Amino acid sequence: MDFESWLTGFTDGEGSFIIGISQEKGRVKPRVRPIFEISNQDLTILEKIKDYFGFGSIREGKNGVYDFYTKNIEEAAKIADFFRKNPLIVKTKEFEAWCRVLDLIRQKKHLSEEGIKLIDSIRPKNLHPRSLKRHPRKEYKMSNVCPVCGKRIVRGHHH
Amino acid sequence: MDFESWLTGFTDGEGSFIIGISQEKGRVKPRVRPIFEISNQDLTILEKIKDYFGFGSIREGKNGVYDFYTKNIEEAAKIADFFRKNPLIVKTKEFEAWCRVLDLIRQKKHLSEEGIKLIDSIRPKNLHPRSLKRHPRKEYKMSNVCPVCGKRIVRGHHH
Repeated sequence: MDFESWLTGFTDGEGSFIIGISQEKGRVKPRVRPIFEISNQDLTILEKIKDYFGFGSIREGKNGVYDFYTKNIEEAAKIADFFRKNPLIVKTKEFEAWCRVLDLIRQKKHLSEEGIKLIDSIRPKNLHPRSLKRHPRKEYKMSNVCPVCGKRIVRGHHH
Repeated sequence: MDFESWLTGFTDGEGSFIIGISQEKGRVKPRVRPIFEISNQDLTILEKIKDYFGFGSIREGKNGVYDFYTKNIEEAAKIADFFRKNPLIVKTKEFEAWCRVLDLIRQKKHLSEEGIKLIDSIRPKNLHPRSLKRHPRKEYKMSNVCPVCGKRIVRGHHH
């Protein structure tokens, strides 16, 4: 048994490479977050995977399902390294698109509207049904930002 | 990449060890069938798995999902050999219960009502949601069989 190959097969079944784009209250720009997630009913194996990577978190989902998930770009980068070393067989396109977005985030492209549009167009579309429920593909939109001062335009905003 | 380890991980995610017990029209006794199944949207990988094993079939399911599945006890026995050599991490209990039923079928226990009750009580309960839809756990029942001649009792049956 080669655990890295096993984990690659398990990810080809249960894993999701997610790029979340969310418009949060009080933020001018949408937030772009790369997430790697494995959902399963077996908490023990998710804990083993978390131990193996040495990072990530686990939360309890619905219907007795748990999720192992990463939280930031640094963890995402380590996941990318792992699957470059251990190539996926099924989720290759999703992984490639996810890595392209990681590069764009490193280049700070996610901070401009153009960059977010580009990220939205190339981010992986095929999520695991469970992940899709949690990360629905809502249409994102930039808030109104004043071209003069860069601040959010609220009622009464003028120069 | 060790393909056998990958396939074990993929099965821990997408595989199902099924014991079907079905009462079919025109048959006196319920039919007991061991089935191994892997469901996925990626037809190419299922064809690769079929080639690897050298047996099994593929059918198109709903919502763009395909199934690789085995059809008889001989194929099931080969699947059992594979996972004895490549131990599962998540679906260990399901696999053990499935193997116990394979043994009972070899001992012809599935031909008696008592044996079928035993098989029903130990067969794997945790199927993949997709497989569970296809193999719902209906309550099985033996048809009325005449204790004198062993034939099915229909209206007007007498000695």
